[in-house]
Amino acid sequence: MERSPSSGAEALTAVELSRSWSALENDARVQAYRRLRRGEAEDFFQGLSSADQGALLVALTPRERKLSLRLLAPDDVADILLEVSPAEQEELLSLLDAPTRKEVSALLAYAEDAAGGLMSPWFARVRPEATVDEAIRYLKRQATDHLETLYYGYVLDAEQRLLGVVSLRQLVTAPGDQRVSDVMKTDVIAVNEDVDQEEVARLFAEHDLVAIPVVDGEGRMKGIVTADDIVDVVEEEATEDIQKLGGMEALDAPYLRTPLFSMLKKRAGWLSALFVGELLTATAMGHYEDEISRAVVLALFVPLIISSGGNSGSQATTLVIRAMALGEIRLSDFFRVTRRELASGLALGGILGAIGFARVVIWQQLFGAYGEHHLLLALTVALSLVGVVTWGTLAGALLPFALRALRFDPASASAPFVATLVDVSGLVIYFTVAELLLRGRLL
Amino acid sequence: MERSPSSGAEALTAVELSRSWSALENDARVQAYRRLRRGEAEDFFQGLSSADQGALLVALTPRERKLSLRLLAPDDVADILLEVSPAEQEELLSLLDAPTRKEVSALLAYAEDAAGGLMSPWFARVRPEATVDEAIRYLKRQATDHLETLYYGYVLDAEQRLLGVVSLRQLVTAPGDQRVSDVMKTDVIAVNEDVDQEEVARLFAEHDLVAIPVVDGEGRMKGIVTADDIVDVVEEEATEDIQKLGGMEALDAPYLRTPLFSMLKKRAGWLSALFVGELLTATAMGHYEDEISRAVVLALFVPLIISSGGNSGSQATTLVIRAMALGEIRLSDFFRVTRRELASGLALGGILGAIGFARVVIWQQLFGAYGEHHLLLALTVALSLVGVVTWGTLAGALLPFALRALRFDPASASAPFVATLVDVSGLVIYFTVAELLLRGRLL
Repeated sequence: MERSPSSGAEALTAVELSRSWSALENDARVQAYRRLRRGEAEDFFQGLSSADQGALLVALTPRERKLSLRLLAPDDVADILLEVSPAEQEELLSLLDAPTRKEVSALLAYAEDAAGGLMSPWFARVRPEATVDEAIRYLKRQATDHLETLYYGYVLDAEQRLLGVVSLRQLVTAPGDQRVSDVMKTDVIAVNEDVDQEEVARLFAEHDLVAIPVVDGEGRMKGIVTADDIVDVVEEEATEDIQKLGGMEALDAPYLRTPLFSMLKKRAGWLSALFVGELLTATAMGHYEDEISRAVVLALFVPLIISSGGNSGSQATTLVIRAMALGEIRLSDFFRVTRRELASGLALGGILGAIGFARVVIWQQLFGAYGEHHLLLALTVALSLVGVVTWGTLAGALLPFALRALRFDPASASAPFVATLVDVSGLVIYFTVAELLLRGRLL
Repeated sequence: MERSPSSGAEALTAVELSRSWSALENDARVQAYRRLRRGEAEDFFQGLSSADQGALLVALTPRERKLSLRLLAPDDVADILLEVSPAEQEELLSLLDAPTRKEVSALLAYAEDAAGGLMSPWFARVRPEATVDEAIRYLKRQATDHLETLYYGYVLDAEQRLLGVVSLRQLVTAPGDQRVSDVMKTDVIAVNEDVDQEEVARLFAEHDLVAIPVVDGEGRMKGIVTADDIVDVVEEEATEDIQKLGGMEALDAPYLRTPLFSMLKKRAGWLSALFVGELLTATAMGHYEDEISRAVVLALFVPLIISSGGNSGSQATTLVIRAMALGEIRLSDFFRVTRRELASGLALGGILGAIGFARVVIWQQLFGAYGEHHLLLALTVALSLVGVVTWGTLAGALLPFALRALRFDPASASAPFVATLVDVSGLVIYFTVAELLLRGRLL
């Protein structure tokens, strides 16, 4: 392919620029974008994230802006406008032609993370009374205009209500003079325009969809969401859940592009809240100060026991939160999950308890570290572990249910949150077991 | 739409069955599948996960199996065969017609999570010397056979090497008598057949792709991966990473469908390993037993301090692991990340240290809990927190780099793993600060 540089400097290919893009600062990005080979700027621009497109547009000349904006589908333009300042939003809107401006404004009215904010208003409409042959001809003609409309024809009545859907494949295998209404599938999976994008993504994954129609409250079709939009949504939602599970607020931008101060705000809030919760451990320990001063050996196992509760709680909460996000577990599965996690907690606690018991006995044989009551001490450690691990597992599994029932995000039951909760109660379990077993001997 | 029940019982719609599917046992699933309305079984079957398709096929009669299998693209058949026993694999393969069997066998030779195992061998080939008009006619004809081939025509030479790609849109806007080789885009993003599916998903998200061509070592085109295949991959990889981050091995099936025993195996391994690591805290505490018996008050803050290190480490490792999985952070970003996390750790440690200092001073005023050296004790707690949080943050951020440099999965640096690592070193930091500040007073 011939090279036709658009400026004096050496021309870049879109693939070359993609590779270095994330390492470039804003000014360098604009320079590099202008050095793209003719014909490649279009593709490259369309492949950028909405945030990068917005930042780039704002830095371009008005003429360049207009050219770049005109390439995009209305839903992509709307995504960009959500990334720039209100003044810039106004200005970019004014560069669009009137029909597109109207479509974009309509899309902007939706919440960014609802089906309506994600959909494309371009799709192929088919009348129910059309013949199969007419519908095929119509779909093929549409296909050359907008790629997103290729897969299906949506059958609408005069009020734009969705009656059914036909695929090209269904049409081709049907007799040419049959009516679309006789061939179409009426049992269509559609979403309301206000449905959250996470739910839309779940439907895609569950039913292996290529496109899903979006309808309003009266069943009127407004647009379609296609699988390629959903890839981004799934990545984004998983990232949010992962960051929440790690015990912080989700970031709004990639790690390296988030200013240090706003990242600190996202982290400091939860970390301080967890710390304040964890201060209760100092209070709980203070409550057992007498016991500790009489048997310092008890203090030695405190980190071991509370961290085991935290780790088992982290496993359970992670499993349940992810399964809830994927729709594998519903609120009605509460008792099934409780039974499973009770059994898991007892089994895992038994394993750790056995290892803990062995550790105390072996150290006693080797170093004589724990004195004459070492068997009772070993039993205290082992029983506490069974209790703490079972409790940690149950708390980790059931906290997401409680949060969901109260209409909070289950992912807020982060691993550190569960660990903090279990730390305080773990201390109470441990010292209670110790008092029961060691009273009159070590205590 | 008329109802045409395929058996005596009441007919089910595909959407109705989808809703109850996850709650049904295997036998009930087969019964319900047979009660689907005529024409809906096909759609429903195609929307199932490969594992569910495999389980269902094995339970159907040979005639039903054959009908269901014939509906699927070779890549989907291959996915099912990977879910069943070798004997069942043989039997299902024998039900296919010869050309499909050959294609499926070729796909089975790829690793399940490589680009080759994910691709469809069906795509539209175009000769470079064809005219634009010929190419359009050819693509439209293909479109009616296989939906997956609709978006692009792939331009191959006589040895099947990928020369470039043309979209329908590019073709339609070009003069009809021009050669395809003059219109095609040669700067194509393609993947080798051995590339991991996680990398393929990253390319889709980064470049907003609809389909990506898969080539072998000599650049010969073997198939395409489409966006709808990638939605599943992204969900699956995120689930694996989340479960690893929670401190366990990733499950092979949804939570409620994983047998209790195999779930326990995935959890017990890591939990025991973490526990054995955590046993070092008992050793470390034993090392400071004298100090604790002289100043029991020191023991009271042990859970607070080590858990703060764990929580801050959990935040940092979660951020870095996710950013690595999304390709936002590479090994070469090591120093940038180190600087950022060092600054974050000091700032977060400063905040927690201030809260900790205030807690000791206020409790002293209210309850006289900590005696005459309470200011020194408060300073010990505060400085330890700065040290432990900074160290936890750095360890959490850098461990994924170390693992990746050693070619391990960075996601193994799970939150509980980092917490365990930081617990032991946190104790050393705390008691060292205490010895420096309190020697001759409390100690």
